[in-house]
Parts: sequence; structure tokens; C-alpha cells
Amino acid sequence: MSGNNDTLAAIEGLRQEIDELDAQLVSLLNRRAEKSLAIRALKPGAQMGLYDPKREEEIFERVSAVNQGPLYSDDIRSIYTTILRVSKEMRG
Amino acid sequence: MSGNNDTLAAIEGLRQEIDELDAQLVSLLNRRAEKSLAIRALKPGAQMGLYDPKREEEIFERVSAVNQGPLYSDDIRSIYTTILRVSKEMRG
Repeated sequence: MSGNNDTLAAIEGLRQEIDELDAQLVSLLNRRAEKSLAIRALKPGAQMGLYDPKREEEIFERVSAVNQGPLYSDDIRSIYTTILRVSKEMRG
Repeated sequence: MSGNNDTLAAIEGLRQEIDELDAQLVSLLNRRAEKSLAIRALKPGAQMGLYDPKREEEIFERVSAVNQGPLYSDDIRSIYTTILRVSKEMRG
């Protein structure tokens, strides 16, 4: 079963690479959240409402534009729908 | 209204920083997706099913463990629920 063991080792190696990417993703998501909170704190001073559908649409367009796959733009949009929802619901 | 203009400029600067983080996030999400697809291709050779709830739980625990906030672990879990759902539904 050495072929099987090689395959299991390859899967394990890829999973470790995913774990490293996940640590980077969590760090970036938190840096993003910090900046969202900073913007939220500034908005009242600029007479801006907290919810800005135009900015949300701009974000969706921008992340689709930089997307090179293999994820489809619809996949990126699903993930960003959750990121933006969580961001709006954050306790500041 | 110079105070107001300063505030608007500060918001604009933070939005540009978010746009840069989003480009990095999209790139990382795609690198993650590539590795998920590679694992999926290997699984039949290792007699492994495509869906592995134990691995999913491990991912949730790991991303919570590395989370330093300001996002709560529940926020990270919501985002990862979407990432993993999209990942499972990817056309290989």
C-alpha cells in the first residue's frame, strides 16, 4: 500500500499548506476589520451614514476584477457577502 | 468644512488600504482553492471520501485558535462556513 501512503502524505502536506494560508487569511481578515471599525468611527464626523450600498457594490466589483480563479466571481461574491455582513454586525 | 474634508480624506485612505487587503485576500482564497482541488483529486486514490467533517472541525478550531481579533471567533466561523461551502461546491 505504499502508493496509498504516498497519497496520504501528499494530502497531509497540502493540508498543512492550507493551514498556513488560513493563518494568513485570519490575520488579513482582522486587519480588514480594524480598518472597517476605524472608518465606522469616522463616519459620523463626515455626516455619513454607517451603511453605504454604493461602497459595497464597489467592493464586489473590485474583488471580481482582481479575481484570477480558480474561484469564480460568484464564489468570491458569496465569501464577501459574509465578510461584509460580519463587518456590519461587529461590535465596535 | 476643513475638518469634514480631513475626515473624508481619512476615510478614503482607509478604504484604499481595505482595497489592498481585499486584493491579497482574493489571492489567498484562490491559492487555498487550488490546494483544495489538489486534495480532492488525490482523495479517491487514498480511498477517502470527498467530505470529511472531522477535517472541517479541525479547520474551525485552528482558525479560532490563531484569531487575535477584533473579529470574534463566531465571525471567523461564519466566514469559514462560507469558504468551506464554496470550496465543496467548486467545479474541479
